Amino acid sequence: MTIYADNAATTKMSPAAIKTMTYAMEEVYGNPSSLHTVGQKANEALQNARATCARLLNCDPKEIYFTSGGSEADNQAIRSAALMGAKKGKKHIISTAFEHHAVLHTLKKLDQEGFEVQLLDVGPLGTITAQQVADAIREDTCLVTIMYANNEIGSILPIAQIGAVCKEKGVLFHTDAVQAAGHLHIDVQAEHIDMLSLSAHKFHGPKGVGLLYARRGVILTSLIEGGAQERGKRAGTENVPGIMSMATAFEEACAHIDENTKKVSALRDKLIAGLSKIPHSALNGDPVNRLPGNVSFCFEGIEGESLLLLLDEKGICASSGSACTSGSLDPSHVLLAIGRAHEVAHGSLRLSLCEWNTEEEIDRILEAVPEVVARLRDMSPVWQELLSGRRQFIL
Amino acid sequence: MTIYADNAATTKMSPAAIKTMTYAMEEVYGNPSSLHTVGQKANEALQNARATCARLLNCDPKEIYFTSGGSEADNQAIRSAALMGAKKGKKHIISTAFEHHAVLHTLKKLDQEGFEVQLLDVGPLGTITAQQVADAIREDTCLVTIMYANNEIGSILPIAQIGAVCKEKGVLFHTDAVQAAGHLHIDVQAEHIDMLSLSAHKFHGPKGVGLLYARRGVILTSLIEGGAQERGKRAGTENVPGIMSMATAFEEACAHIDENTKKVSALRDKLIAGLSKIPHSALNGDPVNRLPGNVSFCFEGIEGESLLLLLDEKGICASSGSACTSGSLDPSHVLLAIGRAHEVAHGSLRLSLCEWNTEEEIDRILEAVPEVVARLRDMSPVWQELLSGRRQFIL
Repeated sequence: MTIYADNAATTKMSPAAIKTMTYAMEEVYGNPSSLHTVGQKANEALQNARATCARLLNCDPKEIYFTSGGSEADNQAIRSAALMGAKKGKKHIISTAFEHHAVLHTLKKLDQEGFEVQLLDVGPLGTITAQQVADAIREDTCLVTIMYANNEIGSILPIAQIGAVCKEKGVLFHTDAVQAAGHLHIDVQAEHIDMLSLSAHKFHGPKGVGLLYARRGVILTSLIEGGAQERGKRAGTENVPGIMSMATAFEEACAHIDENTKKVSALRDKLIAGLSKIPHSALNGDPVNRLPGNVSFCFEGIEGESLLLLLDEKGICASSGSACTSGSLDPSHVLLAIGRAHEVAHGSLRLSLCEWNTEEEIDRILEAVPEVVARLRDMSPVWQELLSGRRQFIL
Repeated sequence: MTIYADNAATTKMSPAAIKTMTYAMEEVYGNPSSLHTVGQKANEALQNARATCARLLNCDPKEIYFTSGGSEADNQAIRSAALMGAKKGKKHIISTAFEHHAVLHTLKKLDQEGFEVQLLDVGPLGTITAQQVADAIREDTCLVTIMYANNEIGSILPIAQIGAVCKEKGVLFHTDAVQAAGHLHIDVQAEHIDMLSLSAHKFHGPKGVGLLYARRGVILTSLIEGGAQERGKRAGTENVPGIMSMATAFEEACAHIDENTKKVSALRDKLIAGLSKIPHSALNGDPVNRLPGNVSFCFEGIEGESLLLLLDEKGICASSGSACTSGSLDPSHVLLAIGRAHEVAHGSLRLSLCEWNTEEEIDRILEAVPEVVARLRDMSPVWQELLSGRRQFIL
């Protein structure tokens, strides 16, 4: 039996989301721009999905722009804010060093184009304070973009406080909420969020669908030019079945946040407690303000990739960090940002749980990981050096 | 019973494409970037789909980049060629006046950014010759982008000849094949195509999925920055179920092109012959080099939108032109490009058929359209003016 503990990379679709998709593929096949009955049925379904997503975020349906996923939404949000800023001569952007690459790589491009990007220090726990943001904001700041919760180490950031600071200072605030949506209560008005990105496949919805919330007054720049879909801001025939299925999954996830948080964080805490007993290990991320499903550890003296492969042999699907950067030999930029040394960052393990994981699975993981870590350390020349004192333990 | 005759706007998914999607939603839910078994199963499925699409286009799998649809692929192709050109000081782009807006609006942006965009005249039949392209190519031409077949009037363009001209002159050639893929035989090597866009939902595949073929040597610019998916050229977790379903639909469509062409073009020709009997009407587009399923007419003295609504009441789903521009009061840029007067362009009807339409449906359409046209003309002040001679007939 496979234990899927990589829900931060992607989730399995829920039966309800699959059911909506299946229904829509058969019955809602029209192009929403078509004037006939078949098209108008699709248009109505699209607007219903938009209204659902708006309600769940507490915004107006006109503030929802469907995209192909979180990366596209992040890119569009940041590009739009940058262009709005540039028109007023404001070219300073504030972010953090441990954002998702969809944010960091877009910021890097903007840096090359003459923007000044300031990445706030996230400290050893992987979080920032609203005060750091307040201190960094300048006259020429056009955007603060800070993730809602980190995808690798699970820290939840003080978004409402950051939003309040940005509002007070009159600076646009975008948050990449890809890991948070459907898992944490989000209210874009109460939290003073101007733009927010999310992705359906992180909360048991389909892949290839996401959305950008952009508060009225934000002037969006199109990444994709063409037809007048999405109020002229995102061309291309709308993926109606995917969007409908996302709305189903989002509604289902939001309806069960409290219950799922209770269940999943209990599993998480059991896993953290058990893995903490492994010598020379350390939990990554904020131990308190933490995504319910996130367990992230560094184990000294081993390679994360070998750990994954041996766990996979035991039927446990895990990750060393973000799926998007697997295959890269560089250590995780997130782990470096919280101050982990290179050699320690290489020995990372992320287990990300959902409400479908069971206590029995946690027990099996708790049996497997210490065993595999011990086995890898036995084979590791670095571990021998550590034991012999030729190399200093860090953790 | 609804007669769906708007397959150029979008198609209903085939049972095989739905079956693949349904299977994948349940069984292939991993993130292809994940190293574990669930992720690698998804990665394998992704590579199989890539190989299938490459085989059907006659290119290398490494030349296939999956996108969220045709519009994104068009944008990326044109942006990439423009950037490659600009680096060599080449800023002249050749296209036609009747491209899809995904192409025209991208070109308009490039024009504003200092590129020179030359739109070739498509003449009354809505086509161009390779000679026109040859004559237009200059030392500083960086891109020729010409659609494979027109979405509104169905003309098929001489792509192989245009490709040969571009190859000879060393100019990049992109074709928007959204209406052609799965309906016409495409061979990117034989036709000397450097870049090609297609969209799954035009050949009974899912919405929200498409691809860009880009020949080795073409340096693609990312529209979406982030993870290293699609060889670093298109960030975002891959929509594996959608991509798998597209591959199924594309394979199925390509396997039946000859048979479908025979069946569908017979229905089309019957429809064209019947509608031609309506006085003061005219077929739009090339009568010979024409998409098998495309029937496009202008009827003098009526409004296309009213025609659609009355046909819809009779259960017939049709379009006045492109679905992407419905809701706009401007007449179709395609019909204006082939020289239709504004008042005639407003009275347009597009019926787009697929292999699932039947002879009986054609009979019902042939009964309905003349009746509805007559009824609308009876109520039309313009028609009265035409009859009385106060206004001149154009058609």
